[in-house]
Amino acid sequence: MTERKIKTAIFGGSGYGGSELLRILLFHPNVELVLVTANEHAGKPVAAVHKNLLGLTELSFVTAPDDLSVLPDIDIAFFALPHGQALSLMPQLPADVKAIDLSGDFRIDDADVFKQFYKLDHVGDLQKDFVYGLTETNREAIRSSRFIANPGCFATAALLALAPAVKSGLLTGKIIVDAKTGSSGSGAKAAANTHHPQRMNSFYAYKPFQHQHLPEIDQHLKTVGEFNSELVFMTHSLPVSRGIFASCYLETTVNLSNEDVANLYQDFYQDAFFVRIVEGSPDINWVKNTNFCDLATHSDGKRIAVFSAIDNLVKGAAGQAVQNMNLMFGLDEKIGLIFTGGNP
Amino acid sequence: MTERKIKTAIFGGSGYGGSELLRILLFHPNVELVLVTANEHAGKPVAAVHKNLLGLTELSFVTAPDDLSVLPDIDIAFFALPHGQALSLMPQLPADVKAIDLSGDFRIDDADVFKQFYKLDHVGDLQKDFVYGLTETNREAIRSSRFIANPGCFATAALLALAPAVKSGLLTGKIIVDAKTGSSGSGAKAAANTHHPQRMNSFYAYKPFQHQHLPEIDQHLKTVGEFNSELVFMTHSLPVSRGIFASCYLETTVNLSNEDVANLYQDFYQDAFFVRIVEGSPDINWVKNTNFCDLATHSDGKRIAVFSAIDNLVKGAAGQAVQNMNLMFGLDEKIGLIFTGGNP
Amino acid sequence: MTERKIKTAIFGGSGYGGSELLRILLFHPNVELVLVTANEHAGKPVAAVHKNLLGLTELSFVTAPDDLSVLPDIDIAFFALPHGQALSLMPQLPADVKAIDLSGDFRIDDADVFKQFYKLDHVGDLQKDFVYGLTETNREAIRSSRFIANPGCFATAALLALAPAVKSGLLTGKIIVDAKTGSSGSGAKAAANTHHPQRMNSFYAYKPFQHQHLPEIDQHLKTVGEFNSELVFMTHSLPVSRGIFASCYLETTVNLSNEDVANLYQDFYQDAFFVRIVEGSPDINWVKNTNFCDLATHSDGKRIAVFSAIDNLVKGAAGQAVQNMNLMFGLDEKIGLIFTGGNP
Amino acid sequence: MTERKIKTAIFGGSGYGGSELLRILLFHPNVELVLVTANEHAGKPVAAVHKNLLGLTELSFVTAPDDLSVLPDIDIAFFALPHGQALSLMPQLPADVKAIDLSGDFRIDDADVFKQFYKLDHVGDLQKDFVYGLTETNREAIRSSRFIANPGCFATAALLALAPAVKSGLLTGKIIVDAKTGSSGSGAKAAANTHHPQRMNSFYAYKPFQHQHLPEIDQHLKTVGEFNSELVFMTHSLPVSRGIFASCYLETTVNLSNEDVANLYQDFYQDAFFVRIVEGSPDINWVKNTNFCDLATHSDGKRIAVFSAIDNLVKGAAGQAVQNMNLMFGLDEKIGLIFTGGNP
Repeated sequence: MTERKIKTAIFGGSGYGGSELLRILLFHPNVELVLVTANEHAGKPVAAVHKNLLGLTELSFVTAPDDLSVLPDIDIAFFALPHGQALSLMPQLPADVKAIDLSGDFRIDDADVFKQFYKLDHVGDLQKDFVYGLTETNREAIRSSRFIANPGCFATAALLALAPAVKSGLLTGKIIVDAKTGSSGSGAKAAANTHHPQRMNSFYAYKPFQHQHLPEIDQHLKTVGEFNSELVFMTHSLPVSRGIFASCYLETTVNLSNEDVANLYQDFYQDAFFVRIVEGSPDINWVKNTNFCDLATHSDGKRIAVFSAIDNLVKGAAGQAVQNMNLMFGLDEKIGLIFTGGNP
Repeated sequence: MTERKIKTAIFGGSGYGGSELLRILLFHPNVELVLVTANEHAGKPVAAVHKNLLGLTELSFVTAPDDLSVLPDIDIAFFALPHGQALSLMPQLPADVKAIDLSGDFRIDDADVFKQFYKLDHVGDLQKDFVYGLTETNREAIRSSRFIANPGCFATAALLALAPAVKSGLLTGKIIVDAKTGSSGSGAKAAANTHHPQRMNSFYAYKPFQHQHLPEIDQHLKTVGEFNSELVFMTHSLPVSRGIFASCYLETTVNLSNEDVANLYQDFYQDAFFVRIVEGSPDINWVKNTNFCDLATHSDGKRIAVFSAIDNLVKGAAGQAVQNMNLMFGLDEKIGLIFTGGNP
Repeated sequence: MTERKIKTAIFGGSGYGGSELLRILLFHPNVELVLVTANEHAGKPVAAVHKNLLGLTELSFVTAPDDLSVLPDIDIAFFALPHGQALSLMPQLPADVKAIDLSGDFRIDDADVFKQFYKLDHVGDLQKDFVYGLTETNREAIRSSRFIANPGCFATAALLALAPAVKSGLLTGKIIVDAKTGSSGSGAKAAANTHHPQRMNSFYAYKPFQHQHLPEIDQHLKTVGEFNSELVFMTHSLPVSRGIFASCYLETTVNLSNEDVANLYQDFYQDAFFVRIVEGSPDINWVKNTNFCDLATHSDGKRIAVFSAIDNLVKGAAGQAVQNMNLMFGLDEKIGLIFTGGNP
Repeated sequence: MTERKIKTAIFGGSGYGGSELLRILLFHPNVELVLVTANEHAGKPVAAVHKNLLGLTELSFVTAPDDLSVLPDIDIAFFALPHGQALSLMPQLPADVKAIDLSGDFRIDDADVFKQFYKLDHVGDLQKDFVYGLTETNREAIRSSRFIANPGCFATAALLALAPAVKSGLLTGKIIVDAKTGSSGSGAKAAANTHHPQRMNSFYAYKPFQHQHLPEIDQHLKTVGEFNSELVFMTHSLPVSRGIFASCYLETTVNLSNEDVANLYQDFYQDAFFVRIVEGSPDINWVKNTNFCDLATHSDGKRIAVFSAIDNLVKGAAGQAVQNMNLMFGLDEKIGLIFTGGNP
């Protein structure tokens, strides 16, 4: 690791993904933030929008350049834009610039499936250059990649819960993932479903059988092990700000004790600093504002339950993106990510 | 009280004020709901918007008529529209129709003050026909009135806390009212200040020294007793859905014991079913979903603190409106309003 | 229905179950509350504990009599005591007194299963006199019963979601119920898992594979239709005060369209006033403070999802208990239960 | 600053104050944590209690030694114990050990006032060796002190809001401080007032005219400037986890514009990194999980409003304690404290 800082740009700095990238990268010892775009806030100090950053940065938002090929000298660009926008911007990037996209634009390899769930088309051959950025299962590919498709928040929680079981080859039958997210998952713009007077007392399901993270989970599980289970993935809205909790129901071909399952998971994640195996149940309270994924497993013979909790904006978005950046630049993946949320 | 039902219309049934009016009037034994307008939802069942009412009403929203003089036969109209709209509709009402306006359009008698705080002009002489609908201090005038200006939510909490002290003639010096409201006070439309991910962890002040309920409180206190104190009124946002809490700081010309102050308030409200004098402090938890105002008083010699809690949508809006309607039609003011919120 | 009021006692009036019973029964037109016990609050006004009831009742708590055979003249007793206490009290009741028990003491017919999940023994033959009080599936038996075992809150949400599908005879494979409850489900006593600073940001699973409502659901489903599916029942804690949401994952032997499933449920519940079939998803926000259960169904070929939402303290406890009482006394089951929660 | 780490002990590591100290000190580059006591958790890993720290520390709690004079070699001890305990422990500390007490035990200089508000007696002459640790007003005294009485959370919010105005010499009349705190201010032990089902919908006042931070504020203001105003200090409970908001109502002898007041505050805090002057209103959302105090000022002629927001556990407790430790050891006061809370 040289002393030279990684010159970094953020495209889309006004949303919650951008906000968390800023919060992490501003204090990352190896990063120099060169450029942060936010068209609607161009000219305004970053800290006028993200008031938590007041006193901590003098950066101002700029308008995204029309032509990314004339960017200032940067080493990496993070894209935290609404779905669809990175698709057209990415091809313009100079060849020596790496990129991590936090949207769904480059997560789905199959063009038809992508079209079905995102109503968008792949751009040329670009998709094949993207590596799926679930750090814990894809570390080596990430290290040597130029382009990263950063996993969706739900997909991160589900995949980290399922990967060891899939890898084991012991699964049979359906997999059911009952997932719940906090309101920040809906983004920084006010909308009916995040209107406080109702949301604070709400819990409901949405997009039944049709959430766009379903094919993302399915596709990546196939790379983890032999996977041809039917996957049921259901999403719900929680009345908290941050946090995803996934309850996964699996079936195994053989009886497994609690200890068997725990060992399977401990082994799989023995080198994964940001995955913690806990007793009983994880709780989103213990992972909020952190890059950790907490997992717990339980067995009832051949029926297995795996619980997973992450902060949707950190391990489910900006934190994992920085973890991937660290790998892409030969750094320890933990750098800049050792921070804790509080108790309470 | 005759068996004939009071034929009732609600203008503006889609907001939270309209929602609460519906919730109360649908079960009021003396009321027949004839008409509920909501232009953007015209044609839709009421219960498709206020899903709490599913199974409880077959009513649908209609478009507000262009000309209120051709209304179906009604006895009373409630206006729960954004500020400014009732001003132009009210003069069109047939002469035998009573009206209660839940907006600020008819609360301020002085045209200049009204202009200053609402950026609106009085309509002709209409203002002088309006009676201010703070039930507990204005019961007789309400009984015989045709037009009621229903008090603002903050004003209700503040006035019920201050009226006995003002009436006593013992006040001197400044009065400071530090008031806090839940997010439903901002209405049913999603907005940045009610965006759940931020609001759930927020507390902040707004409109310092400039809230439009200030002149309303001041004007009404002058009718309660000799009042020429300087009034400081400050509003804040609470991260709950329902509830207003006002902390009032007063000064008296003579030393008063805790008991003296309590007696003063007990006497003033001895016939007021919906005002409860409590020990220690009221709590918005105990008045939520009710028409009660809970008050507590404390003395420290010549310094007095009065705490007041209401549900902003009930006693602070729809509940008090129905309480006033009851009086206007010669009914017991409690009819249709004896419901409780839960513990919890 | 005669004019004579139902003389009613509540054993255990200080908890949340008792609180809700009080809130409903105080305003029930056919009920006279004769006795409300709460040993730790004996002598105190009910409204000193449940401050929402201040001004609405003069009742005071009394100590539970040592010997229930010398009770004042009552027609029915509600038991809202901690698990285990009603077991020993019930046999003492005079023979002409009906009873509804809100605890788990009489819900499990199999003594071994009861012992396993509750660590308690049946009392003599009493269990066979109890009818399971899920009103919508057991109406006729309830009408003619003397003793009702009122269903658990989770069990109510799960059973109402599952009964039509089980009855249809179309199910195969496992049934998975992923259930979530608000904090009031833990009762009125403060405890670590309901400590506000942590709970407000928490979501976690508990008692995996071991919740005591599992055998209750299983047992009752067997009475609804031919049922030998494996049932996975998982409970989680939500950071709201009131509400249970159950996500149920089913598998059918034949392909069913969304409409097929909806029709199945509509038919099953056509006479059930308190079950509402909704589009998309139910939301605990729309059932809070009501006796409604909202259901939505979705199909993806042979995979079915059913979502269910109730207020745990009303339809999941006190409301359903009163619904059952109404039937036991030949009344319309809706009496005293037509109240709504708000929007918001 | 030498490379030698500051050997540090925490007495009372299981509460929220201890938890926050751990969270900060574990990552402080100049600190080595030698000892953390928690009698009820002795022997348990710190991360078994504060699960947010899982994976971040191998420390375990120990029992507090009976005799502090035989402590392992430490440079400083933080006391985060219930009020009263540090009083008896402090005199046992070896003479070369510095100490910062987070309780109220050493905040009140006047023995009679201390007795009145805390029901405790000073220990010998020890009180005179304590410096009041409000960093921004007492920086020089803190640098050279051995013993620090760390300010109360409410007192910190109030004093930072009032100090510039008091220093200016322009105040007259009463000062009213209406303060509100989140539930974590009640500590880590579950209690009735922090029971989630009720607290989440609560707002209430407590200890009217009698909160123990009143004399603390009064005493320290007298050291800031000529201060003989009457001080009214009122405390309320907010349904959030973290955060204190204080609304302060002042009166000046001369008319001041908004700009005049803003300048006064900007000048006073020009060297205070952790005090940020903001427009409109501070919001606890923007200071949560940080060591910042956000202030806003407003003028209406001679009436001034000052709003103040802090995180009660950071700037109101552990953060300020570490800020003081930094000064006591000749370090930059910001070290270890440059972290942000999120948006959201």
